[in-house]
Amino acid sequence: MTVQISDIYDARARLAGISLLTPIVSDKILSKALDANVYLKAESMQRSGSFKIRGAFNTISRLSDEEKSRGVIAASAGNHAQGVALAAQLCGVRSTIVLPVHAPLTKVMKTKDLGADVILHGATFDEAVEYSRVLKEEKGYTYVHAFDDERVIAGQGTIGLEIVDSLPEISTVVVPIGGGGLISGISIAVKTLRPNARIIGVQSNNVSWVKPSLEAGHAVIPEPKPTIADGIAVKTPGEITLPLISELVDEIIEVTDEEVAHGIFHCVQNSHLVVEGAGAAGVAALIARKIGVSPGETICAVLCGGNIDANLLARVLEQVLVRQGRYVMFKVLVMDRPGMLAGLLDTVADSGANVIEVFHRRAMWLAPLGRVGIEMLLEVRDHEHGREVQRHLENAGYHVEPEGQDTWEE
Amino acid sequence: MTVQISDIYDARARLAGISLLTPIVSDKILSKALDANVYLKAESMQRSGSFKIRGAFNTISRLSDEEKSRGVIAASAGNHAQGVALAAQLCGVRSTIVLPVHAPLTKVMKTKDLGADVILHGATFDEAVEYSRVLKEEKGYTYVHAFDDERVIAGQGTIGLEIVDSLPEISTVVVPIGGGGLISGISIAVKTLRPNARIIGVQSNNVSWVKPSLEAGHAVIPEPKPTIADGIAVKTPGEITLPLISELVDEIIEVTDEEVAHGIFHCVQNSHLVVEGAGAAGVAALIARKIGVSPGETICAVLCGGNIDANLLARVLEQVLVRQGRYVMFKVLVMDRPGMLAGLLDTVADSGANVIEVFHRRAMWLAPLGRVGIEMLLEVRDHEHGREVQRHLENAGYHVEPEGQDTWEE
Repeated sequence: MTVQISDIYDARARLAGISLLTPIVSDKILSKALDANVYLKAESMQRSGSFKIRGAFNTISRLSDEEKSRGVIAASAGNHAQGVALAAQLCGVRSTIVLPVHAPLTKVMKTKDLGADVILHGATFDEAVEYSRVLKEEKGYTYVHAFDDERVIAGQGTIGLEIVDSLPEISTVVVPIGGGGLISGISIAVKTLRPNARIIGVQSNNVSWVKPSLEAGHAVIPEPKPTIADGIAVKTPGEITLPLISELVDEIIEVTDEEVAHGIFHCVQNSHLVVEGAGAAGVAALIARKIGVSPGETICAVLCGGNIDANLLARVLEQVLVRQGRYVMFKVLVMDRPGMLAGLLDTVADSGANVIEVFHRRAMWLAPLGRVGIEMLLEVRDHEHGREVQRHLENAGYHVEPEGQDTWEE
Repeated sequence: MTVQISDIYDARARLAGISLLTPIVSDKILSKALDANVYLKAESMQRSGSFKIRGAFNTISRLSDEEKSRGVIAASAGNHAQGVALAAQLCGVRSTIVLPVHAPLTKVMKTKDLGADVILHGATFDEAVEYSRVLKEEKGYTYVHAFDDERVIAGQGTIGLEIVDSLPEISTVVVPIGGGGLISGISIAVKTLRPNARIIGVQSNNVSWVKPSLEAGHAVIPEPKPTIADGIAVKTPGEITLPLISELVDEIIEVTDEEVAHGIFHCVQNSHLVVEGAGAAGVAALIARKIGVSPGETICAVLCGGNIDANLLARVLEQVLVRQGRYVMFKVLVMDRPGMLAGLLDTVADSGANVIEVFHRRAMWLAPLGRVGIEMLLEVRDHEHGREVQRHLENAGYHVEPEGQDTWEE
């Protein structure tokens, strides 16, 4: 192997006092559901909000004084930007980070706050990478790769050491895969110390090069689609990471955006942790029961990052609430005369439902003349309460049509 | 004092292996903003989602075998229910929890999942308490008070020990106040070990008995109003806690629901921690600069709980985004003929804004005949981008009226 366990121990020594020893928390709900001991490694609480500081610091702190004096450069649309910026700041090294022009402002601001020179260039991430390569040549910067670098892999591997330290009985580690740096490092650490432990990699089904590449025996790049797990939306396999994954990872699972949304919701509601899509991928695979579990075994899912925009988080929570039956939409037909809407809403109030939105539509439905269609979005306690509310309305004489929760095709 | 530091050390010994030593995390953003070292004690990650397990376990584990065999009872609309249920389960004691009939289903389910017999009774929390007192007499249960009990106070005080252990240089501890059990325990621990440290209590301005009670020199109960910090919406002062607060707490701060919402948002976005309203009260007071800070001092805010409903969390995040200018509402007048709306939306797209909702209103506005009013809710990067979008529309010839973000009076 290109990276040895000794490299990971070296990285741990360098990272002492730099990266946080993030908590490993018990997930009681998943443990009960899966009849196993499920733990979450909360790298979402790591400095800069993801594990990236580990690899970036292990790389930058090893540069020669001459390299350090010239500065470093990286291209990233996400966590790597903040990891490199923070690592460079801690090493007293100037950093330049190239982000695509339309990168979210919060990410731009956070990277700037960590002292990086931020350059917005290119419409896509690939264009940003290309420009960062040009700047590297022009200015003599050292390029800090997000995953395909032995020093980066050794840095991320320190997470594996921490898992084995805290959970010596570990039998399965679940790790999201973007470029594969994280899972490569963790696999080397865990497989060296616990050769019988399983390593399971999780990709978004919208950006999934691992399975086809392993099957083909060489790098395959499927057409990527958008995913809410943007932190692992890396479309190109690594030259170093692909062989490591092939050698060390036991199984690859792909998860849908809907499953990832459930993973985020689960972490928020039960563990009170904010995780981004990529961070929730492992939990998503467990919730969806896509990972075979032996009774009583000890499983650790790595929550690799917490940098989710509040706007996206709010939308994810609401979407999952709809799927859980906490919001229902009813269409009701009433006489088109004063007081009818008020009467309807009184009946709704009796049933304990909370009105979120009411649409009083005249033109949209082919309602009999003299009647009018009302659409109501209601908050209820659960599916059963939703059905109770419907029965209550029907018993009061209303004709009710519940609206299906159709999933839009992408 | 009714509770001694020795009682808190005893409680710590009892709680070893029971309550989690929750993380104390650095808040870099607040530290920079306040020129101080600000830390957050993440009791939101405690078992059952709040600090309540500490006091409940310290109480129940001390009962005689005879008391244990009869079981315990508590009334709660929130965290105390889960704390007592879990503590009783761990002690092998039967627990009965009375919740008001309209308690959120998630709380009922979580309390049941912890093995409690849940009784839904009464329209209000007070009615639930009353009924629990009746049951206590009838059945011989031991009543576990949420705050006004020395054993409960000593249990919550263990948080103070953990803060001093981790932050020996602590100079200010910020603690939310509901019934006062948490701040009483923490004050005894911290003031004994660090007599010069300040203790600052935070209440919701909608449920705030401490200030008027301290001023009057006896318990005063102002009319409570609803607050999103429902975990500290305790309207009655404790007989034990009020004198302790009077003796030990240096300052009382009141925060508004809007400030609490900012506190929740801040914890989610920057520390990736989910906290409930009560849990965010201390952070809210710091963000609102309602607490005087000396340069370089060490402050710890106690995030006392994380049990916030996903629905409320989503609404809080969205409301703060609106206030931050991430959502803007524009009214635009266009000619009432085909293609005009499409043209408007093309112009919006050019400006980089994201359309959330469009209302095409004919009747609502007194628009000149032949024209139609369109309301658009747009997602933008920030206030400045919102103004840019408006200028872009105006340069394209549209008459634009931005809508104010009016706050509704309560």
